[in-house]
Amino acid sequence: MIQHVVLLTFVPEATPEQRAAVTDGLRALPALISQIKRYAVGPDLGLAPDNASFGIVAEFETRADYEVYRDHPAHQQVITDHIGPIRAGRAAIQFER
Amino acid sequence: MIQHVVLLTFVPEATPEQRAAVTDGLRALPALISQIKRYAVGPDLGLAPDNASFGIVAEFETRADYEVYRDHPAHQQVITDHIGPIRAGRAAIQFER
Repeated sequence: MIQHVVLLTFVPEATPEQRAAVTDGLRALPALISQIKRYAVGPDLGLAPDNASFGIVAEFETRADYEVYRDHPAHQQVITDHIGPIRAGRAAIQFER
Repeated sequence: MIQHVVLLTFVPEATPEQRAAVTDGLRALPALISQIKRYAVGPDLGLAPDNASFGIVAEFETRADYEVYRDHPAHQQVITDHIGPIRAGRAAIQFER
């Protein structure tokens, strides 16, 4: 299994509506991209200082399945329409789980 | 469920042995900390540029269980003995999944 993780930091002026649009847009993807085996996204709970703003944790059976997700038009549209406008930073990894 | 994620960046001079000690030390934790419900750690696969070096994805039933893990002496020892000496950067989040 491939574990794919992204941590996003949003600009401070990002509105609640803009942040919610990221959550909603990403949560629609598992119904559209069958290669996603397990998927969880959400905003930081505020339990620790200096945390990222938003997390994405996805699992795929193969590297090829991860690449289908990465390049899928529905995913790219969420990035372009909702993440890009409020993104200040991004950290990511793919590892074997 | 609480999803806890950490992405670490290691200093470039970190040796393979030092990196393996982080993996081995963390993978021993689920047997020692019963509050961990699901746990995966590993080094970056090199599929994308600018990725972090190492990922940790953990799930807990409650915030209190996450805090037991966070503060557990066995966990703290891995941080002190193995992660600290090669750590260049860290991004983290806790969110509801």
